[in-house]
Amino acid sequence: MKIDGISYRSVWVDEDGFSVRIIDQTRLPWTLEILRLVDADQVAQAIRTMQVRGAPLIGATAAYGVALAMRADPSTDSLERVAAMLAGTRPTAVNLRWAIARMLTRLRNTAAGERCLAAYDEALKIADEDVACSEAIGRHGAALIQEAAGRTQRRVNVLTHCNAGWLATVDWGTALAPIYTAFERGIDVHVWVDETRPRNQGAALTAWELGRHGIAHTVIADNAGGHLMQHGQVDLAIVGADRVTRDGDAANKIGTYLKALAAHDNGVPFWVALPSSTIDWTIADGVRDIPIEERSGDEVATITGKLPSGEIATVRVAPDDSPAANPAFDVTPARLVSGLITERGLCPASHQGLLGLFPEQK
Amino acid sequence: MKIDGISYRSVWVDEDGFSVRIIDQTRLPWTLEILRLVDADQVAQAIRTMQVRGAPLIGATAAYGVALAMRADPSTDSLERVAAMLAGTRPTAVNLRWAIARMLTRLRNTAAGERCLAAYDEALKIADEDVACSEAIGRHGAALIQEAAGRTQRRVNVLTHCNAGWLATVDWGTALAPIYTAFERGIDVHVWVDETRPRNQGAALTAWELGRHGIAHTVIADNAGGHLMQHGQVDLAIVGADRVTRDGDAANKIGTYLKALAAHDNGVPFWVALPSSTIDWTIADGVRDIPIEERSGDEVATITGKLPSGEIATVRVAPDDSPAANPAFDVTPARLVSGLITERGLCPASHQGLLGLFPEQK
Repeated sequence: MKIDGISYRSVWVDEDGFSVRIIDQTRLPWTLEILRLVDADQVAQAIRTMQVRGAPLIGATAAYGVALAMRADPSTDSLERVAAMLAGTRPTAVNLRWAIARMLTRLRNTAAGERCLAAYDEALKIADEDVACSEAIGRHGAALIQEAAGRTQRRVNVLTHCNAGWLATVDWGTALAPIYTAFERGIDVHVWVDETRPRNQGAALTAWELGRHGIAHTVIADNAGGHLMQHGQVDLAIVGADRVTRDGDAANKIGTYLKALAAHDNGVPFWVALPSSTIDWTIADGVRDIPIEERSGDEVATITGKLPSGEIATVRVAPDDSPAANPAFDVTPARLVSGLITERGLCPASHQGLLGLFPEQK
Repeated sequence: MKIDGISYRSVWVDEDGFSVRIIDQTRLPWTLEILRLVDADQVAQAIRTMQVRGAPLIGATAAYGVALAMRADPSTDSLERVAAMLAGTRPTAVNLRWAIARMLTRLRNTAAGERCLAAYDEALKIADEDVACSEAIGRHGAALIQEAAGRTQRRVNVLTHCNAGWLATVDWGTALAPIYTAFERGIDVHVWVDETRPRNQGAALTAWELGRHGIAHTVIADNAGGHLMQHGQVDLAIVGADRVTRDGDAANKIGTYLKALAAHDNGVPFWVALPSSTIDWTIADGVRDIPIEERSGDEVATITGKLPSGEIATVRVAPDDSPAANPAFDVTPARLVSGLITERGLCPASHQGLLGLFPEQK
């Protein structure tokens, strides 16, 4: 999408033909800083520290990490080592393991001498396919916004949690793709942006990318969504996902489950947008079986922002001697999800629903 | 309760016999600063800027504000003027209007020459009764924690939202009173403290007062409670209230409703603790009829904390050009509330339940 009129992707290969460029998302919304990653360790570090984040983007970036490793050493040993190393960076997102598995499948069947080129080719395919997926998600999801606009005959209010925008994918986004598409079609759409504590991906990233693209939005505390839904101020909610089970349970940023409960309680449609690479066909019960990453309590006890001077600073918001806990994701049971928005269309959040769109998984 | 071994109330009359002392709660948890208020305007300002907050404490402090005004000018004009002025400081808490109405009833029936003394007397009565209420709430509510301890035979985990501790009342608190009482009885209790964005009363005040009193607690993002409940890590939730309708709907800090939904979805008991001065017998439907204060969006877009240098600073967390909205309370419908903890005992969150404890309201 666009930053003040100029098109960007969130990951791309540099003009030098091999190094990998990313936007350092820990510096947004204050500074647009483009990083250059030259080896797989740097890629792993960027994923671990969330300079890149968002399930689809993590997958694409990890694929480029494999390519960088193949450039340095295309041996099978090196391939298996980098795959294991990158897979260990984040536990919840399934796209990461999906992208690495796809790279392994292609490269295990490629002679060492050709692995480097094949790896870059496969990584670009993953990235391009992600863009195509996101565009399709945007097309299918925009119909929901268009329908709400037709029904209400006024501005459509969409609530979203965390960042599932173009910054979380390679382009377009998942949850935000329908919003961008609706906006391009001239529909009057406004986005309630959950700030998404503790890491504030909503306030820092979603508000930033919507603002840069010119889309009306309002930042709210994560606590506010239920109240807005009680008072008819949310027409639909759309969120992304880090992993969706074959039965339609959706792991997404911590707090998503609370918004799904409120949507359900108030008859507000609650949609989860995802490329099919986010589906984990191996598990059914998300609350029981999706591993939830526990991150440092410091992310809760402190917060980073901009001082009046313009300087970026981290302040502590809890007493020095108070411990903090930080589960990074929660699971929204399928029963609370109105439906899934995938690159192949909309479907109920259920095994039957998913198989209807992905019959090859039968 | 105690700050590092020394007992405090949250509002009291200074040794000079007339000025009103409060703890500046906007400076916590970083600095324990005691303010001296010498006129009603200062009291109004302290309430408006949330140097004092919490429904019961607002009521008691406003009563002292009336007393300060009577000291300066005990005329009926002055009385009516200060009552209207103080009533306009915060719209949602009903205790404020309750305390002012009580002051008016007493003082309208008192000769001007005796109004100053009578006002201080009535304000002290309100404060003392609030302490007695909170102690009783603690006694009744502690039985719930004791019951959970007996049932689980392990540490009891209580989740709370915002600050309904001794800092929100004159002493003991509402939601935290049962926890203090259980702690005094030697029950092993641990508190999940919602940070409570946007003003962070949980991280700043609840964590601070629990820590100073020596009670085990962990600060969490407001988003985390649903996940903890899904995984059996919350035995019960107790929150305070700013206004409870005669049918048991409870207005409390924004986000309370989301926790009540999660508790309901996971079979976790969800209790609301309140002195009867918080009950608004004039309305039934809280979602429809309780006015919800809209505060400045700056409270969402910025956050105040401590820099590594020890200095207190405010950082902006949203893009400069992103608007923010800030509804300060939400309403939890009675159907999601397991019961109410009042100074007269426990009751169902319903008109029948409340009338059982307060038959004089029939």
